[in-house]
Amino acid sequence: MTFNDFGKRKYWGWGLTGEGVPEQQRERVRRLLTSTFGVTPGELPPPVSPDQAELARSRLTLPGQDWYSSDPHQRLLHGAGKSYLDVLNMRHGRFNHLPDVVAFPGNLEQLASTMEWADQVNAAIIPFGGGTSVTGGVNPVVSSRFDGTVTINLGRLDKVLDIDTTSRHAYVEAGILAPALDAALRQQGLSIRHYPQSYYFSTVGGWIATRSGGHYSTLLGKIDDRVASLQVMAPDGTVSESRTLPAGSVGPDPNRLWIGSEGSLGIITRARVRIVRQPTHKSTSSLHFPDFESGLDAARAIVQSGLYPAHLRVLDPFEAMMSAGISGSGGAVGATMILGFESADFPVDEQHARAQKIATEFGGKARTAAGSSNSDESVDGWRDTFFKQPYLRDLMIEWGVIAETFETAIPWREAHQFYRDVRDDVMNVLQSQCGGGGVLCRTTHAYPDGVAFYFSFFAPARRGAEHEQYAVIKTAATDAVIKYGGTASHHHACGRDHAPWAHKELPELWYRAWKGARHALDPAGRMNPGVIFPEQ
Amino acid sequence: MTFNDFGKRKYWGWGLTGEGVPEQQRERVRRLLTSTFGVTPGELPPPVSPDQAELARSRLTLPGQDWYSSDPHQRLLHGAGKSYLDVLNMRHGRFNHLPDVVAFPGNLEQLASTMEWADQVNAAIIPFGGGTSVTGGVNPVVSSRFDGTVTINLGRLDKVLDIDTTSRHAYVEAGILAPALDAALRQQGLSIRHYPQSYYFSTVGGWIATRSGGHYSTLLGKIDDRVASLQVMAPDGTVSESRTLPAGSVGPDPNRLWIGSEGSLGIITRARVRIVRQPTHKSTSSLHFPDFESGLDAARAIVQSGLYPAHLRVLDPFEAMMSAGISGSGGAVGATMILGFESADFPVDEQHARAQKIATEFGGKARTAAGSSNSDESVDGWRDTFFKQPYLRDLMIEWGVIAETFETAIPWREAHQFYRDVRDDVMNVLQSQCGGGGVLCRTTHAYPDGVAFYFSFFAPARRGAEHEQYAVIKTAATDAVIKYGGTASHHHACGRDHAPWAHKELPELWYRAWKGARHALDPAGRMNPGVIFPEQ
Repeated sequence: MTFNDFGKRKYWGWGLTGEGVPEQQRERVRRLLTSTFGVTPGELPPPVSPDQAELARSRLTLPGQDWYSSDPHQRLLHGAGKSYLDVLNMRHGRFNHLPDVVAFPGNLEQLASTMEWADQVNAAIIPFGGGTSVTGGVNPVVSSRFDGTVTINLGRLDKVLDIDTTSRHAYVEAGILAPALDAALRQQGLSIRHYPQSYYFSTVGGWIATRSGGHYSTLLGKIDDRVASLQVMAPDGTVSESRTLPAGSVGPDPNRLWIGSEGSLGIITRARVRIVRQPTHKSTSSLHFPDFESGLDAARAIVQSGLYPAHLRVLDPFEAMMSAGISGSGGAVGATMILGFESADFPVDEQHARAQKIATEFGGKARTAAGSSNSDESVDGWRDTFFKQPYLRDLMIEWGVIAETFETAIPWREAHQFYRDVRDDVMNVLQSQCGGGGVLCRTTHAYPDGVAFYFSFFAPARRGAEHEQYAVIKTAATDAVIKYGGTASHHHACGRDHAPWAHKELPELWYRAWKGARHALDPAGRMNPGVIFPEQ
Repeated sequence: MTFNDFGKRKYWGWGLTGEGVPEQQRERVRRLLTSTFGVTPGELPPPVSPDQAELARSRLTLPGQDWYSSDPHQRLLHGAGKSYLDVLNMRHGRFNHLPDVVAFPGNLEQLASTMEWADQVNAAIIPFGGGTSVTGGVNPVVSSRFDGTVTINLGRLDKVLDIDTTSRHAYVEAGILAPALDAALRQQGLSIRHYPQSYYFSTVGGWIATRSGGHYSTLLGKIDDRVASLQVMAPDGTVSESRTLPAGSVGPDPNRLWIGSEGSLGIITRARVRIVRQPTHKSTSSLHFPDFESGLDAARAIVQSGLYPAHLRVLDPFEAMMSAGISGSGGAVGATMILGFESADFPVDEQHARAQKIATEFGGKARTAAGSSNSDESVDGWRDTFFKQPYLRDLMIEWGVIAETFETAIPWREAHQFYRDVRDDVMNVLQSQCGGGGVLCRTTHAYPDGVAFYFSFFAPARRGAEHEQYAVIKTAATDAVIKYGGTASHHHACGRDHAPWAHKELPELWYRAWKGARHALDPAGRMNPGVIFPEQ
């Protein structure tokens, strides 16, 4: 998928037009929904065709240059991210907030010119990488102090500028899509090895702006640690770039201010990211645990041991059951751990065996034998399933099911209780709002000091009342996460959807500092207003 | 060493009164200086006794509370850090800049009250942890817009508040000294395993404020990655604390703004740091390389392999020779690599063997056999020598030798050329300023994408002209580091000494952001003015 394919994406759901859940799996999920939740899937009329959609008129006069567009299809494609509400609204033809203009600058001059134009017409600027935000990060919902919104799609800034095989850096323009970067790297035996669920549709700049987390988890997990330098443009067109350094101590790390800034402090235009050699040794296995808690304890012991699995996930019993049910691989009872090691240098079987031994001490039983493989297919099968999950979510929405995920992180000491408390609170709200439903949980990342939980929930919606039901559920879930000590996001960023909780989670002095930095870089507060902290 | 021992420190040099270089080693170094540099060590009269020192009068009226002091000895002890110039000045009785008052708040209320008092009397505030800065970070050198300076010694905020053995966090007050923290942790089989050269005299808050680097390098090296949460006080007395999280993505990482802030954005009052189990398996060896470059290549291959040595240093031939000469362990020819692995979970001999094998591919030859040991003594011997090096530097100053170190980091691709270019530039300036001298280099940290170099230089000073000579040398060395693409510090912070280079190294937009954040937190610019960026 290149920039030129952007128009092939669905404006109303995940991924590409024509892609979705295969018929056979659809049927399995339908049966599962009926048997587990008593839901009778309904159907929706097809999505509105872009050329028949009735959109509010663009409030801005289109500038003359050829990189601007107010084409209805482009406005729809840039009108929202991919959260439950985004898909629900788009799928039902509710186009509440669309950018007035979409810009596709092809170089820094055009980008600066776009920023200048936005200033002239008093428009808010929404930076747009792959547009896969599930937290309202790209939704052009801004206060009335602006006379319009311009979404800047960075997809034409997609060049690979340098691959340094000695330092293992890839120097890229920020709008490059993950598969394009990996294709360039693969020719030299290298890889970014960063696989967020949005892999096929997200950009390096988007990863950095949102502190994304990848599928390969323990050491290479967070993009935060993979940034060696950044180039950033402020709304006044000033561009500056940090030095490429493995580490330093001249003041706070400048890169870290932009990593996670979600466009609020300028636009990331280039990045030098740390890359790795394509692994040649891989070994994975699946283990069974009597319950989630013992799986968690084993995960903790493994990551605290000094072993660095490339892949370590624990699925709670319900998640394991659903996962098996959806894939058709048979019923699972208890919790499941997926454990994998990889290396480009040495065989990993021993490390794997050591980790399995630790797991055994916590009641783990190998369900599949440790498998060594040089082929991507066998080891990365789970990853591919994982990439396709968002299509399933869209299907749920079509069928009238409220289906959403939320994620968080918590230190190990609090992890058991936190898991139970959050799950219980969400179950209660599903019960009161929808008369039932289910909450699933898996760990996505394990750190020496804590763990990231990824919760999914499903509940039968009342057609037409989904918004209200969802709002109550989302509020209860986020309240629970914050109340029990977690964070409102571990790799999906804050966006607009979590901004109401930011003041509860983030330190007051940080808020002041961020506001001061923002004011210095962007006196008009034009850059993605409303993300992280609510607009005032 | 506890806070109560603070008065036992030398105001004019490194460490404790009475501690220094043992007589036998003194003689070896004296001979080495004569034979290598043709220097005839001179002697200085003893340092001025604090009660006979003639100090400028304190410009501030001492507040009544018992945690303030304007005692001459305290003012001397807090008058400078431990850079070459600091020691030179103090040793010669040149007390150019002393704080007017030193405060020792014992709790947050007293700290807030001190900040309030500083505001009332228009004093600049110099936060002071262990005072071991070698970059002017604690020197009360501020612009005339202030009516005085108050140095806040945080040494009474030294409590261990919580040790979480499950999440492996130590929650401490920021003024705690490293050995006190380690003593508390050792009882539970845990350790901070962070050993900067200042270990015995520096504080956790100081480490965090300066982005310190520890002796155990590859994975646990930088304190940046060890911070799970921070409590910070702004000059208006507002205290806020980040959540304890293994990771997150709700905006930029708030902790990272204060990590490396050198007191410029408030005072770090508490930290929750990631700790580890005391290693029980250790293995180290020493390897010989024909030249530094092949040692560097081997180091790169080892860290890029996915092995994580606890300890990996390469000494250039001159450093290796001097190191052997000083310790008396015999002459070394070529470069030396010190390689060590450790684990609290599994034997590390195989990893060690794998790393040695990689080293062999680059011309490395094991000089000592890989040694496994459970005892701290054998493995950590090099560390103890390393801790004592600053005493040697003081001796050089006494003898009339300009002796200083500077450090930097650089990506691997540029590392060979950078090393040679910087070394040549420094040799040239030593030649022109002092008629000769020597430049040594070792790596202190190796990362998958680059390396940290630690340069030392020695040259015979012209008595009385040391200042001017040093200024020219320091400028040439820092110019070289910046010109060839490095950073002016990798684990010593920027301080006031490197601030003139900050605008050359750091991105313009970061400067704007930092200034905006600082203004929001500290409108008067009272907090450690002049560090990182020069005062305006």
